[in-house]
Amino acid sequence: MEQTKEVGACLVVGAGDDTGAAIGRAFAREGLTSCLVRRPRHAQSLEALAQSIRDEGFKAVAMPADARVEEEVIKLVETIESSVGPLEVAVFNIGANVQFSITETTARVYQKVWEMACFAGFLMGREVAKRMLERGRGTIIFTGATASMRGRANLSAFAGAKHGLRALAQSMARELGPKNIHVAHTIIDGAIDSNFIRELLPQVDELREQDAILNPDHIAQNYVMLHKQPRTAWTHELDLRPWKENW
Amino acid sequence: MEQTKEVGACLVVGAGDDTGAAIGRAFAREGLTSCLVRRPRHAQSLEALAQSIRDEGFKAVAMPADARVEEEVIKLVETIESSVGPLEVAVFNIGANVQFSITETTARVYQKVWEMACFAGFLMGREVAKRMLERGRGTIIFTGATASMRGRANLSAFAGAKHGLRALAQSMARELGPKNIHVAHTIIDGAIDSNFIRELLPQVDELREQDAILNPDHIAQNYVMLHKQPRTAWTHELDLRPWKENW
Amino acid sequence: MEQTKEVGACLVVGAGDDTGAAIGRAFAREGLTSCLVRRPRHAQSLEALAQSIRDEGFKAVAMPADARVEEEVIKLVETIESSVGPLEVAVFNIGANVQFSITETTARVYQKVWEMACFAGFLMGREVAKRMLERGRGTIIFTGATASMRGRANLSAFAGAKHGLRALAQSMARELGPKNIHVAHTIIDGAIDSNFIRELLPQVDELREQDAILNPDHIAQNYVMLHKQPRTAWTHELDLRPWKENW
Amino acid sequence: MEQTKEVGACLVVGAGDDTGAAIGRAFAREGLTSCLVRRPRHAQSLEALAQSIRDEGFKAVAMPADARVEEEVIKLVETIESSVGPLEVAVFNIGANVQFSITETTARVYQKVWEMACFAGFLMGREVAKRMLERGRGTIIFTGATASMRGRANLSAFAGAKHGLRALAQSMARELGPKNIHVAHTIIDGAIDSNFIRELLPQVDELREQDAILNPDHIAQNYVMLHKQPRTAWTHELDLRPWKENW
Repeated sequence: MEQTKEVGACLVVGAGDDTGAAIGRAFAREGLTSCLVRRPRHAQSLEALAQSIRDEGFKAVAMPADARVEEEVIKLVETIESSVGPLEVAVFNIGANVQFSITETTARVYQKVWEMACFAGFLMGREVAKRMLERGRGTIIFTGATASMRGRANLSAFAGAKHGLRALAQSMARELGPKNIHVAHTIIDGAIDSNFIRELLPQVDELREQDAILNPDHIAQNYVMLHKQPRTAWTHELDLRPWKENW
Repeated sequence: MEQTKEVGACLVVGAGDDTGAAIGRAFAREGLTSCLVRRPRHAQSLEALAQSIRDEGFKAVAMPADARVEEEVIKLVETIESSVGPLEVAVFNIGANVQFSITETTARVYQKVWEMACFAGFLMGREVAKRMLERGRGTIIFTGATASMRGRANLSAFAGAKHGLRALAQSMARELGPKNIHVAHTIIDGAIDSNFIRELLPQVDELREQDAILNPDHIAQNYVMLHKQPRTAWTHELDLRPWKENW
Repeated sequence: MEQTKEVGACLVVGAGDDTGAAIGRAFAREGLTSCLVRRPRHAQSLEALAQSIRDEGFKAVAMPADARVEEEVIKLVETIESSVGPLEVAVFNIGANVQFSITETTARVYQKVWEMACFAGFLMGREVAKRMLERGRGTIIFTGATASMRGRANLSAFAGAKHGLRALAQSMARELGPKNIHVAHTIIDGAIDSNFIRELLPQVDELREQDAILNPDHIAQNYVMLHKQPRTAWTHELDLRPWKENW
Repeated sequence: MEQTKEVGACLVVGAGDDTGAAIGRAFAREGLTSCLVRRPRHAQSLEALAQSIRDEGFKAVAMPADARVEEEVIKLVETIESSVGPLEVAVFNIGANVQFSITETTARVYQKVWEMACFAGFLMGREVAKRMLERGRGTIIFTGATASMRGRANLSAFAGAKHGLRALAQSMARELGPKNIHVAHTIIDGAIDSNFIRELLPQVDELREQDAILNPDHIAQNYVMLHKQPRTAWTHELDLRPWKENW
């Protein structure tokens, strides 16, 4: 691994089939080694994703882990730093979009949603910040949603977690910006052309033809752009929605 | 208890020595039976508070409980409804204002702060909403802070929990407002004249003389005002700060 | 006028038939002399309003003026201070809710809406602030709307003026709060039971029966409440909407 | 001019020596003909800017005009469309950053600041929208500031105008987005390395060495990026600040 060690690493926590995959691919194309993380039960599709990036001639490693477990996140970051390369970029991209009326929201759901969409973001953010602070550089991006800005009926759990994640991003940005670590938060405000949506929306092909649904690759381009911004002009928060979106 | 049953109840979760105590006292003066909740280790001072309200000729009950534990909150609400009276008002007032840099924030602290300042609010909000929905009326108030609106250096944990609580309040308001349940969120933007602050700020007497520190009784008046608003004109979010505050 | 001079004055700019009238009446009932302002062409209905308040046994004066004209506002405030009483409260309540697509918005409309709903607010705010600063006390309230918070299709002109008014209220609050002048901004988020709405909404009677439309008297109670808040706990921004409102 | 007519045009209203100049240069480098607008009294330095862009081998035209005058803006857009090329991009970049306490703010200042920083933006926005709507494409960018988000002591006039401009951008985005016109608003949150600042801040060289002051060329890159975003993922609001900025 001596050679790859010279190359910087990009951690993508929540490297699902769509947005996370596109982000991992985009940073790999920039020359970083993409370290792709999903829960172990998705290990196979994670490895397939890593392989498809390597087939393009870029660097990627599948690293299955449960991002909600502190020890696993600590070990994950250690492994990357010791055997892949210095973390230049880390992206937190786990969603947990569930809808329940307040009275139907179980304590278990409320807690699980927070662990996945907020607590895991804290664990990743803290661990990569420690390494980036040592080197005095790095980019950390958290993926937000419309529910990061406003609560809504049936969204107590999801909006709560997403608000918490936004508070984390803001707090970290104010703390780490002056230490040359760029912390950004995106607001993905619209449906993404993803497996999840394809099952829900029968008209997804029509939307895609009209560019009326968020394209994961285009989202990923914006993440790369954020990473490349010169430090005289950093963006903290960036919203993204299709042109036709009614907002 | 037959007689008190006719009287409505007001639940105050987080009935500490200052703001929570003032809120409990204020609603008791309005004729409700104040059900005061703090953790069991504060049972003595909680009972002293209840007694001091009863000494004024009003109704109050000390009900020590751990508001972070689902079963305890369920039982608490059941007990009030069966043996005190119908819950007309519920106030969630637990704070957890700690400051740590992101790298010094342990997973334990991050989780504890969320459990106290957000998860417990969800548990209370859900349980009282169930009862209020049956009757088609009620008021639920969540206490917020400056950190409910913006993250800040060293506030990842506290701002995260407070943002989550605000998302809960907004989601519940949009869901329960049309069912005649008034859900409100306050932004307490300044130091409160409290035991906590008196230890930190030596100049607290001077501030009090100038009305330059939030008076718990004045905060409590606003909670009573929110409860009494006619339903043609409900406030969801109310900020409170001393006149001299630099914001 | 020697006797009334002892009594404080309340200025209501935009004392139309509904909200402004209710605000003028509410402060008169608190013992202030309400100085009611509308454009001269409404002088008759303005005098009728003042008379109806006096018929109740309270103090009110009709003072027709064009609030967009600097000299008239200066003279108005001078007249009140010299012949009515010290201004304790001033409320700016002029709306200008028009809807045009951006391409159909004439420069004349864009400018007129701003003059009515923002510039006139600046003139009133500045002139009353000068007097209140001399005495070191006073309350200034600006009436906002949903469009004070967000732009929307066809609302370029109205939202622009309302955003400007909100910026004025915030700037003045931060500047004058520490000088003991309470500056507040309300967000009226819903239809008001007014002549304007009664013409637009045929179902207004039904809404009123359900308390599902903002009652001007209830709005006015909140303005009085803001004026009476002790200065240890001032509210800057207060939203008001009917319980059934979908927001 | 037949040949240039094939090339798209970029209008920059407020093409001063720094940010506006950098934006005009950046879009010219993208192949558009930059149409640079400042008031006639700056005609000479405007022509020098256009010449310096042409000296680089790109296309630029100095078009002195008073952007606050409706007829001039109408004529400006007509001239560009008839003799330069179709407007693909329009940037509104006029600032008017003055600070006065509320009581020292003259009606003249309050109105002038609004005319420069908001009304002129409306005129430009409306006129270019008409042309872009005919073609069903285009990008319109409005430059905002910290004062676009919050009022502050001594900023009543500036914050009022900037809030109004933001409301315009939001309203236009919601209206024109679904018609394939990308309307964006930037929040420039920090000092810009400009002539204006160089006079105020003696330490500007030191800041520049540390990348601690906004570089106009880097701001301009973000405007070009916004224009190039694929329409499946458009950004409406983008904040920019130096890494060291305390916000």
